Amino acid sequence: MTRELHLGAFLMESGHHVAAWRDPGVPDRAGLDFGLYRRLAQTAEAALFDLVFFADSVAVEEGAGAERFSRSARFEPLTLLSALAAVTDRIGLVGTVTATYNEPYHVARKFASLDHLSGGRSGWNLVTSDNASEAGNFGRDQHVGHADRYARAEEFLRVVRGLWDSWDDDAFVNDRASGLYYRPESRHVLAHEGEHFKVRGPLNVARSPQGQPVVVQAGASEAGRQLAAASAELVFTAQPTLQAAQAFYADLKSRAEAAGRPADAIKILPGVYAVVGESRAEAEDKQGALQALVDPTAAVGLLSRMIGNFDLSGYALDEPLPELPLTDTGQRSRQQLLSGLARDGQLTLRQLALKIAGGRGHLSLVGTAADVADVLQQWFEQGAADGFNVMPPTLPAGLDDFAHLVVPELQRRGLFRTRYVGRTLREHLGLKRPVVSR
Amino acid sequence: MTRELHLGAFLMESGHHVAAWRDPGVPDRAGLDFGLYRRLAQTAEAALFDLVFFADSVAVEEGAGAERFSRSARFEPLTLLSALAAVTDRIGLVGTVTATYNEPYHVARKFASLDHLSGGRSGWNLVTSDNASEAGNFGRDQHVGHADRYARAEEFLRVVRGLWDSWDDDAFVNDRASGLYYRPESRHVLAHEGEHFKVRGPLNVARSPQGQPVVVQAGASEAGRQLAAASAELVFTAQPTLQAAQAFYADLKSRAEAAGRPADAIKILPGVYAVVGESRAEAEDKQGALQALVDPTAAVGLLSRMIGNFDLSGYALDEPLPELPLTDTGQRSRQQLLSGLARDGQLTLRQLALKIAGGRGHLSLVGTAADVADVLQQWFEQGAADGFNVMPPTLPAGLDDFAHLVVPELQRRGLFRTRYVGRTLREHLGLKRPVVSR
Repeated sequence: MTRELHLGAFLMESGHHVAAWRDPGVPDRAGLDFGLYRRLAQTAEAALFDLVFFADSVAVEEGAGAERFSRSARFEPLTLLSALAAVTDRIGLVGTVTATYNEPYHVARKFASLDHLSGGRSGWNLVTSDNASEAGNFGRDQHVGHADRYARAEEFLRVVRGLWDSWDDDAFVNDRASGLYYRPESRHVLAHEGEHFKVRGPLNVARSPQGQPVVVQAGASEAGRQLAAASAELVFTAQPTLQAAQAFYADLKSRAEAAGRPADAIKILPGVYAVVGESRAEAEDKQGALQALVDPTAAVGLLSRMIGNFDLSGYALDEPLPELPLTDTGQRSRQQLLSGLARDGQLTLRQLALKIAGGRGHLSLVGTAADVADVLQQWFEQGAADGFNVMPPTLPAGLDDFAHLVVPELQRRGLFRTRYVGRTLREHLGLKRPVVSR
Repeated sequence: MTRELHLGAFLMESGHHVAAWRDPGVPDRAGLDFGLYRRLAQTAEAALFDLVFFADSVAVEEGAGAERFSRSARFEPLTLLSALAAVTDRIGLVGTVTATYNEPYHVARKFASLDHLSGGRSGWNLVTSDNASEAGNFGRDQHVGHADRYARAEEFLRVVRGLWDSWDDDAFVNDRASGLYYRPESRHVLAHEGEHFKVRGPLNVARSPQGQPVVVQAGASEAGRQLAAASAELVFTAQPTLQAAQAFYADLKSRAEAAGRPADAIKILPGVYAVVGESRAEAEDKQGALQALVDPTAAVGLLSRMIGNFDLSGYALDEPLPELPLTDTGQRSRQQLLSGLARDGQLTLRQLALKIAGGRGHLSLVGTAADVADVLQQWFEQGAADGFNVMPPTLPAGLDDFAHLVVPELQRRGLFRTRYVGRTLREHLGLKRPVVSR
């Protein structure tokens, strides 16, 4: 079988561009518009995407310019994904949930429930929480340190997977004649006792259609890479250049092999911010129009958060980006990436803020479908990606453009499916269904 | 306006009867069959019910006979309700979430998100967790004591309501021209610091269509009644007789008034287990067929859990119910109710287990639509109920019977709506939309 690439639709409120909400084609208050999300998921499904993906945070956006930005009011991912499960048939449903301020029993249960609701389409993007805004909503003054967060996350994931294996696949016999609803010997108590968690189990959800929901990770730090290599099946990553993406890809695949896993048991999807037009001029006009809508306060606010919650609002816009202390938040890799962009391009604060106003440091492309497909093909064929997490600049138009222009181009090149062969997210991604481990 | 009664559809896996899953008309593994639940919610909506309701537990059923009973594998309520939101338009969506093993920020956020997804139809049934099975899944050896649970629940609810009021109704102006997404002065930090919780806020969801989701309570203990009187807008209750229901109704309404609330700010819905036939003989045949399917081990197991997790499996089936020590679980009121049934009826263990195998101590009716409507009308008109939470013996047939036989009879008598007038659950229930409190 020819190797085909995988596509995620990374849906975020009005779109990924910081000024997307000011675009006249974007609905008002998009983050809480279920009609919009239904349409987006159905568009992505009609275009045969592997999955839709939602990021998350358990806090409002804070800091200078937050009120000029559209991220502070949005759906909670698991409720949104569950609603989308009912109005789609095939597309995977991946949501972000932090392991820092949750209980493994709740998380295991909700994703297993979603997997049953959707006929095997759920995936969990495990993140750790790294900022004081989130900490303050869960009884803490300071966020949890980086090492502690990852130790907790690793144990959290082991507990969740143990709970997902509470029941054998054929436990629930539903034998009306004998009166036996499940086989007692197919029910397993986890009895986990670790450093962070003590969880008895079993889970009160049968083993789910996928055996286990797909586990997704996006950490780029040393600890994040180790957790991904050992446990993740799908990895999202921010890579600005082919060289950086190749290095990350090779590193993570070799770490996975070192951990005893086949390299293809882990699929790596860099994000791609793509502004697509019928012509290059049209694409550049679209991007130009969005850039013209950027409010410097909002853009510098976004940069401040992306660069490790370091408040840049007091700095001169037209001076070089100041030297920043290394952050201890989960944004350290992104901070290094963005500082590197500024240094290499000799960018001022304003220039850097404008540069990342769309793609936030991800691969950013502006052009025709062929232009975009050329780069994606190169990355896919030259060891930089197994596919891409598509970040539309605006919604719904940016997703429509990718679905109607880029997807057919990828199909013409034999790089992307022309129909769904599988039913589950695992099947779309070519991932094995895990057997129950004891 | 004539006073009309309210109806909830209390949906539970294969149905409320302990042997429902053995009925040939019930789908296999009903607790995880979304196609079934979609059909049920749409049936209830077509019949103009106020709401569907799901109970919950964060543990499997344990103890003797658990494998002969259908409660250990089911959807998690918020994922299920969110999916149902996408396939219904008008009916209210009420789910149970424990305040004992959760964080207020998560709970506030999920119900607010569901309220947005559904256009104002969400309701939260606040319960406390009362058994060792649940405790063991959240790091504890023993369940939390009764008084502590209620103190925590009361504070939990205050925090959730505070978070629901994080934003003024018109905070998100989405002003493309000026670049202002929300008015900073319409964003409110909660900064709660109490005995059990420290939560800063604001919530990252805009104020929801109902202002606040409807708050539901079902506690019958002294602490449960006080919490309900002070805070609940809808109360579910188990009452076996008119006299008991009248006493409860009068007590709770007067407690609400003592707490400074109008009596009609709190709606009281006793559960009703109703087996309905075209004739009395048909109804009795249906109930008889279900009773004939009862496995004594499963029925005594259910009774053991209902009576305060007191293991009755070792006792002689055909001797009187033994004297039981007063439980310290949240089942104390139910234990007293069930012990009273046994004492008053001079029932053996087997007889009591069979008697509650359908309605678990709730009002239980077997008869024609007119028979059932007679009792509901009496309770409604004689100060015992503002409506009923309908507990179908089997699903989908038991709900179909109620929807197609009893509802039209109630409509003929002018007791129930003939179309939805409102759009939100609050509007269906005649509850005011709360203003933002500061």
